[in-house]
Amino acid sequence: MTGTDIRIIEIAGGGVTTPRGFLASGIAAGLKQSGKPDIGLLASEVPAVARGAFTTNRFRAAPVVYDTEVLGKGLPVKAILINSGNANACTGPAGLSDARLTAANVADRLGTEPENVLVCSTGRIGVPLPMETLLEALDPACSALSTDGGKDAAEAIMTTDTVPKSMAVELRLDKKTVRIGGMAKGSGMIAPKLEAACPEATMLAFITTDADIEGDALRHCLVHSLDHSFNRITVDGDTSTNDSFIALANGRAGNRTLSLKSDELALFRDAFCHVASRLAREIVLDGEGVTRFVEVKVRGAQSNGDAKTCAEAIAGSALCKTAWFGADPNWGRVLCAAGYCGIEFEPANVDLTYGNVPIVRGGQDAGTSKKEQAAAMSRREFTILLDLNSGEGEFTVWTCDLSYRYVEINAEYHT
Amino acid sequence: MTGTDIRIIEIAGGGVTTPRGFLASGIAAGLKQSGKPDIGLLASEVPAVARGAFTTNRFRAAPVVYDTEVLGKGLPVKAILINSGNANACTGPAGLSDARLTAANVADRLGTEPENVLVCSTGRIGVPLPMETLLEALDPACSALSTDGGKDAAEAIMTTDTVPKSMAVELRLDKKTVRIGGMAKGSGMIAPKLEAACPEATMLAFITTDADIEGDALRHCLVHSLDHSFNRITVDGDTSTNDSFIALANGRAGNRTLSLKSDELALFRDAFCHVASRLAREIVLDGEGVTRFVEVKVRGAQSNGDAKTCAEAIAGSALCKTAWFGADPNWGRVLCAAGYCGIEFEPANVDLTYGNVPIVRGGQDAGTSKKEQAAAMSRREFTILLDLNSGEGEFTVWTCDLSYRYVEINAEYHT
Repeated sequence: MTGTDIRIIEIAGGGVTTPRGFLASGIAAGLKQSGKPDIGLLASEVPAVARGAFTTNRFRAAPVVYDTEVLGKGLPVKAILINSGNANACTGPAGLSDARLTAANVADRLGTEPENVLVCSTGRIGVPLPMETLLEALDPACSALSTDGGKDAAEAIMTTDTVPKSMAVELRLDKKTVRIGGMAKGSGMIAPKLEAACPEATMLAFITTDADIEGDALRHCLVHSLDHSFNRITVDGDTSTNDSFIALANGRAGNRTLSLKSDELALFRDAFCHVASRLAREIVLDGEGVTRFVEVKVRGAQSNGDAKTCAEAIAGSALCKTAWFGADPNWGRVLCAAGYCGIEFEPANVDLTYGNVPIVRGGQDAGTSKKEQAAAMSRREFTILLDLNSGEGEFTVWTCDLSYRYVEINAEYHT
Repeated sequence: MTGTDIRIIEIAGGGVTTPRGFLASGIAAGLKQSGKPDIGLLASEVPAVARGAFTTNRFRAAPVVYDTEVLGKGLPVKAILINSGNANACTGPAGLSDARLTAANVADRLGTEPENVLVCSTGRIGVPLPMETLLEALDPACSALSTDGGKDAAEAIMTTDTVPKSMAVELRLDKKTVRIGGMAKGSGMIAPKLEAACPEATMLAFITTDADIEGDALRHCLVHSLDHSFNRITVDGDTSTNDSFIALANGRAGNRTLSLKSDELALFRDAFCHVASRLAREIVLDGEGVTRFVEVKVRGAQSNGDAKTCAEAIAGSALCKTAWFGADPNWGRVLCAAGYCGIEFEPANVDLTYGNVPIVRGGQDAGTSKKEQAAAMSRREFTILLDLNSGEGEFTVWTCDLSYRYVEINAEYHT
């Protein structure tokens, strides 16, 4: 899905409250020292079908433990409370109690059951949630819920993000208008390794839709979208304890219920994938200290898995990332990373292209002038295509450069 | 081997020419734009037993291909020519011819056969060796050979290194004095993953000894030393195309020939290991932009392999490395890296210590004040001990922080 499907229309300024029947709010509770908004609340007027994908980090944050437990029961979801400023991770049994207590308090205020409320946290690891501050914020957060609160919620879930990330699309399904909206946060600790069997995501991302869709079909869309979105991004190679990707569908569009057998599912899936893909891309574009967005395509590997391993090695190489920062066409670093990633291929067959400019042919310098090489890299966005010419496997990763600013942000995060 | 064995004496100012019968030189040939020394020559007066370990990067540089071919024949070695300023990697068949031609020209000047000469290169990947410049330098390099040329050679092999790395020790074997010297270079593209079966090293390192030792016994010492030296260091996670670790033994000490069965082999091995370990440590201390040396010890893993995976994940985490740069005791990042590295352990059992200061107990904050935590990290060198309490496996990695200077060096390497 490339976004060129004319049946899928982007809605300018859209977000999680663009689909009918969704409300959101974002307020400042005082969890962030900066005083910026730090509580986002997302709610559906009617119970929504919910599916999610969560981190596979062994230190699963308390809200991740709680949400997987609740979602595992297949119950509908009425609301998601998201806090920034504190990850509620590595906080032991007390952290899990805090997650439950938060959900129960939200449920109480919205007139639903605790098991119909999810919670997500992002921020510093290992610090107990300041529950008094958090609980005091629930009344104002609930009062502020509105059908145009999507932007406030997107802003409240930010940590080192510099811009909120929201979008929405619209499509027609059996003559009904169906909308899909989304929001995400994420800037550092970004390195998803998503698998359909055990999905994992290194950020917080939420997709809402007013489509009427069965849980299995929604899960199918969510899993399918991973390889086109959160599965292909990496900022710093660090996979977080809190990553969560949750989709809610409340059926308010009144379409014929989408199931795994519906003809219309493919179109809906493309639209869902388009939203997920765009949000993932925005996470990289807003990665900590990013000055360049780099698409790393590996082709001609012996398998898609090999291509993924290779693309992730290049995207994760500190030497490649610093060279991109300096617009240095030092292609030896790209080949070097491919060489140590552990997959099989014939070095003498390898071709490398920056944008449309040939850089390496048959494992050696293609003879392009340094000026042309540098010009291909001195753009804000460019594509590196490595063709191993050893098979049919391919994979694409979206990543970024490593700048002074990344070091600054992360050396001074605490102080 | 911790260096406390009183039978092993360090020789102040020692290097590769401290053992008897070794000569070295270092000259400026013009391969480096800076005009600094860039050709190092190491020679033994008599043919020396030689063993080596080389990179497993699939893009093996031409000199690595050549050296493994020559060493595979088990022939003695008379000299090693090392150039900096050009890696002769990804240079195709012409690069391999250049390596052979270089060896043949050195052999010619030293009155030996091409197969008794090794070559090593380090520097930029993908640029043909300027052979005319290189060959012109061989006469002066050979003329300059001397028994106190070790320091010149150590300087000539530097790339982004800020200091030359040399050392030597002396020990008594059956009433004879045996000496072991070494030199190394390496600062970036440092991330060894050495295996006894297929050794790999991410730097250039050379050990000379005047011990009389059989090839098998020398190989045993070399392989044994890896886990205590080049096997445990990582600067940036990038494994080079040119890594080479070569040991030469010329027998001039006149000791009883050391074999795998010799009682004295253990002591010699310890001394050999001490030299390798010190050189490896110096590589990290001189890592690109390093401000802190961090020893990451993982203990209580289910296997040594698991401990290694975990220690390398922590040492490779951009978030941990930037936190160390900022002396930020952000322990969540250490646990997070352990959590995503893919090994099995019980998160609630994990203990973490910085120096002697308890940081995490049972997967949660140990309650040490932030001031004490920060004080434990604000040293130039400190140890992080992560005890997974899930088994007997352990491994130690030596690494460093990630600073502005690393980014600067690598963004501007080319220009």
